[in-house]
Amino acid sequence: MDKERFDRQMAFIREIDKEKLIKRQSYLTDCTTHENDAEHAWHMAIMTLLLKEYANEEIDVLKTMSMLLIHDLVEVYAGDTYAYDQEGKKTQKEREHKAADKLYSLLPEDQCEYLKSLWTEFEEQKTPEAKFARTMDCFQPLILNDATDGKAWKEHGVRKSWVMKRNENTHLGSEDIWQYAYDNLIEPNVDKGNIIDD
Amino acid sequence: MDKERFDRQMAFIREIDKEKLIKRQSYLTDCTTHENDAEHAWHMAIMTLLLKEYANEEIDVLKTMSMLLIHDLVEVYAGDTYAYDQEGKKTQKEREHKAADKLYSLLPEDQCEYLKSLWTEFEEQKTPEAKFARTMDCFQPLILNDATDGKAWKEHGVRKSWVMKRNENTHLGSEDIWQYAYDNLIEPNVDKGNIIDD
Repeated sequence: MDKERFDRQMAFIREIDKEKLIKRQSYLTDCTTHENDAEHAWHMAIMTLLLKEYANEEIDVLKTMSMLLIHDLVEVYAGDTYAYDQEGKKTQKEREHKAADKLYSLLPEDQCEYLKSLWTEFEEQKTPEAKFARTMDCFQPLILNDATDGKAWKEHGVRKSWVMKRNENTHLGSEDIWQYAYDNLIEPNVDKGNIIDD
Repeated sequence: MDKERFDRQMAFIREIDKEKLIKRQSYLTDCTTHENDAEHAWHMAIMTLLLKEYANEEIDVLKTMSMLLIHDLVEVYAGDTYAYDQEGKKTQKEREHKAADKLYSLLPEDQCEYLKSLWTEFEEQKTPEAKFARTMDCFQPLILNDATDGKAWKEHGVRKSWVMKRNENTHLGSEDIWQYAYDNLIEPNVDKGNIIDD
């Protein structure tokens, strides 16, 4: 074993524990607490395993799951930017790129490059895996919001146009999942007033 | 899309959200809160991606990660059994098998069988993937305990003989990781008195 290599891997593994402290706006289905980034990533990785059959194009499941497991790690330094936080979004890219450089450089060079490339691929949204991962990343909070009777939506006065904008690319990973999400998670919540119909 | 199939997948995806509420004995590295099962699984899935090169035998990474992501789901109904809870361990198997039947039967039959077979494979500890997954499952709490100056160990008066018994199969997945864990995470904590030297 190359001790220096292993020490670097361990430093990274210890550091990413902080992702468990990064709170999102979504509530868990029991409404008691906000979800954190690690829980969100775990949920989506299992969803990928179960829902891969609905991907528009065939996906490499390991790559998609890996992408989802690591794609929010930059938030350990950059913080979570809420999907509907317009001010935060202005500086999000810059903050996250700095964070990626800092965090991934803890790793041995080959793994630093690999994880950064996975993250970049997710961000660029060009490959089938990145598109499906984005579908999961948008679909999973819809599930939680619906299960909590729109708790986070109501707190933030979320409008249908915002949800539609946020989900404009959800169909690119899976038309089937997007159709289900629209019919079963978005529209009924607009009807109930949980999402403001504008 | 087969709506009935998708509805079953969705019921399962909603139900497993409860894993985020199952607390473990380990503390997060910042010592503020106990880790939960979903966070633990997420951490180990990334660790598998990074540490697979140390597996004694070649492993199917997707299978190993999938196994780790789902292996604690039964605790949604059966609760977490602490590694050093001798009373709880007596009924653990029975409770977890009942829980598995209840939980996995939410899924379409093919996926129910697949996830149950992954869980059974993990429990039986015969394949390279199951052995490496067990290595991760024992190694990850050692990392957290070490990072928190043995907080959970001290609270429970954990003895070295218990830690060694708990880790008697850790080397089966990776001799390298076990050696590192013993030298860097167990022995130094025995020396500091965080683990009782019996």
